Amino acid sequence: MWQQPTSLFTDHYELTMLQASLHSGAAHRPSVFEAFARRLPEGRRYGVLAGTGRILEGLKEFRFGEEQLRFLSDTKVVDATTIKYLENFSFSGNIYGYAEGEIYFPYSPVMIVESTFAEACVLETFVLSALNHDSAIASAASRMIAAAGTRPCIEMGSRRTHEESAVAAARAAIIAGFDSTSNLEGGHRYGLKTVGTAAHSFTLLHDSERAAFQAQVDSMGVGTALLVDTYDVEQGVRTAVEVAGSELGAVRLDSGDLVEQARWVRTLLDDLGNENTRIMVTSDLDEYAIASLQSAPVDSYGVGTSLVTGSGHPTASMVYKLVSRHNDAGEFVDVAKAAKNKVSVGGRKYAVRQLDERGRATEELIGIGEIPETDANDRLLLEQFVVNGEINTDFTAASGVRRAVKRHRDSIKEMPGTSRRLQRGEPVIPTRFINED
Amino acid sequence: MWQQPTSLFTDHYELTMLQASLHSGAAHRPSVFEAFARRLPEGRRYGVLAGTGRILEGLKEFRFGEEQLRFLSDTKVVDATTIKYLENFSFSGNIYGYAEGEIYFPYSPVMIVESTFAEACVLETFVLSALNHDSAIASAASRMIAAAGTRPCIEMGSRRTHEESAVAAARAAIIAGFDSTSNLEGGHRYGLKTVGTAAHSFTLLHDSERAAFQAQVDSMGVGTALLVDTYDVEQGVRTAVEVAGSELGAVRLDSGDLVEQARWVRTLLDDLGNENTRIMVTSDLDEYAIASLQSAPVDSYGVGTSLVTGSGHPTASMVYKLVSRHNDAGEFVDVAKAAKNKVSVGGRKYAVRQLDERGRATEELIGIGEIPETDANDRLLLEQFVVNGEINTDFTAASGVRRAVKRHRDSIKEMPGTSRRLQRGEPVIPTRFINED
Repeated sequence: MWQQPTSLFTDHYELTMLQASLHSGAAHRPSVFEAFARRLPEGRRYGVLAGTGRILEGLKEFRFGEEQLRFLSDTKVVDATTIKYLENFSFSGNIYGYAEGEIYFPYSPVMIVESTFAEACVLETFVLSALNHDSAIASAASRMIAAAGTRPCIEMGSRRTHEESAVAAARAAIIAGFDSTSNLEGGHRYGLKTVGTAAHSFTLLHDSERAAFQAQVDSMGVGTALLVDTYDVEQGVRTAVEVAGSELGAVRLDSGDLVEQARWVRTLLDDLGNENTRIMVTSDLDEYAIASLQSAPVDSYGVGTSLVTGSGHPTASMVYKLVSRHNDAGEFVDVAKAAKNKVSVGGRKYAVRQLDERGRATEELIGIGEIPETDANDRLLLEQFVVNGEINTDFTAASGVRRAVKRHRDSIKEMPGTSRRLQRGEPVIPTRFINED
Repeated sequence: MWQQPTSLFTDHYELTMLQASLHSGAAHRPSVFEAFARRLPEGRRYGVLAGTGRILEGLKEFRFGEEQLRFLSDTKVVDATTIKYLENFSFSGNIYGYAEGEIYFPYSPVMIVESTFAEACVLETFVLSALNHDSAIASAASRMIAAAGTRPCIEMGSRRTHEESAVAAARAAIIAGFDSTSNLEGGHRYGLKTVGTAAHSFTLLHDSERAAFQAQVDSMGVGTALLVDTYDVEQGVRTAVEVAGSELGAVRLDSGDLVEQARWVRTLLDDLGNENTRIMVTSDLDEYAIASLQSAPVDSYGVGTSLVTGSGHPTASMVYKLVSRHNDAGEFVDVAKAAKNKVSVGGRKYAVRQLDERGRATEELIGIGEIPETDANDRLLLEQFVVNGEINTDFTAASGVRRAVKRHRDSIKEMPGTSRRLQRGEPVIPTRFINED
């Protein structure tokens, strides 16, 4: 999956902290770091966790090879003692967390890293990059799926975001329920279903729209989707049907008033005898546009920009905080920052999703210490992904994605119906803290 | 730079278009594609082009190796004829464009790709991913630099965006005038200056704030920056000065009301005899927060989330359009889509920045055909990056970044003073089209 070390996807200060703590000796204190979001984006009712599988894949490559060490040494980022420590670096601790695809709420401990301070500290930037990006996309995607109901959504935003973010975005979209993606590398790495037919340039390349449609049908068969809005939409639809006949798979609309257009294009297709030809729409859709198209005769949605930019919230505001560490007596001490407007809760957490007798989520229970007795329906949310440095590969690659798709579908089913509303509101279930101390 | 092929950072439909055009024969028509933005983000007065160097670096690796071809073949993305074509794929055309760091406006032809349809078509997604992401970041960064005046800005948003976007964002920020970045991979790949000291976790790791400061100073010297807001800021400053003495390099404030806090922390530092200790602030800054801090005694700004998410505009809305291609007679024909609300202008463009006698930009002139006579001051904006497939490496890697930094600085100097205003407005100079046809 990764063809290069991931170890320099790291903020400079992680390594200077490592250096200073090696110097003070505190680097080796057993520590617990926790990733969580203090809040959801304004008005959002839930978040969708994604990125975990990518973190586990990247963790395998989180090594400092000759090239990385030479860079750190030449540019004097750290001293010789630290370089020596990094030479042998390999994460040997435990990682727990919410399964990928799981729904989360403010303060849900979505990832817990237990190891020495040194080992957990240097992972911070990479862990947060993956969680913040991928969860932002999955959270937006899940709302689009809610808005689309039973109509399939196709991810096609690669060109609107960094080329590697595009791969991760395709993966996150599929986890949240998208049917497929345009991103080929996503297909290659994660076995995602990829789709696509043609753009306007293909029509413009040929001497006429008819010639372009003919070329496409000749090569891809009549089941393809023809893009009918390069010139005049009505003429485009008529030409498409003339060229492909009654078995034409779909027409795609990419501009104009899609609601109105879908209506008369549907009528026109039906009049021409193409009742089975589907209508796909793809112009700057977000969850609100999708909702407004629900009454229109549309068969599928292609979503680009708003998906890969998290529909107004391109990052998930997850943080990664030291919550507990050994003191000199070798006992764990809970720690938390006290600075204004950035509250953290110290201590190693557990998390339980409380469900009522019908299996409906009622509360996110987060606590420190012993897990209280739970009802039969309640779900413990923390799974273990890494055991003494050993990565559970069930959570990685294509199988990890399939597992996450199922996790998200199952988690959504548990949520109260209000979770599917697009209107702004509070988190759909409340979070309750229990602190035994 | 790239350790793996970039060829699958591509939308599925680019390859199905390739297949259908190989079938129709149009694949080999000489073609001109153009990348441009139809608009700037609302209220923005200029955009900053970035991503070009990364495209050129990726172009070298835009090959279809065994693994890529097997994927395309196994998943039936394209047919055997197309696989055969891709086996030997290597871009052999010409690429022109605005230099990286250059300012652009709506319809500026920021990149022009001349080759066969086949070769230019398959590059679309990768080209747009790099331009859209990197230009969004550079454009936001440039406004932050304007707001910061002579005070240095430090990029530290890696954790808020995908780990590879983070590297590209660091690079784009430096191009737009940032002093340095926290991103180590950015330092490694592009020779960017990296900086960093410590986070709250470092303080929490130790048994007291004093112990943590002592550890940091022991390891990094008194010139380091101490983070003083983990517990009580006033006590933090006093402890920092006690531990490091009068030569303490800086204190960092990361929470609370930064304007008010910077004032009294400055007074406190001065009273303690630390007139030379700088104040760095880092809490959720964007260009507006930076502007509001200009009257406060702050020495540098660390910028994270808002930078890497383009300060509200995470993508630059660049498109890549076929504007001209051969007909059967072997003559170039200008082409453009006619669909509603998505106007394109056909034809191979030139671009000139018109400057008055004092070297101030007055107009962006974009035309088709012969370039009109220009005044001595006017600047032709298109440079050639690729000549018959040969990449000019001056525009890549660390030297490319240095060149782009200079280009941006010089371009900004030419702009009217209003370009530096944060208020919403029209593009700072108008774009004029000349069409000789």
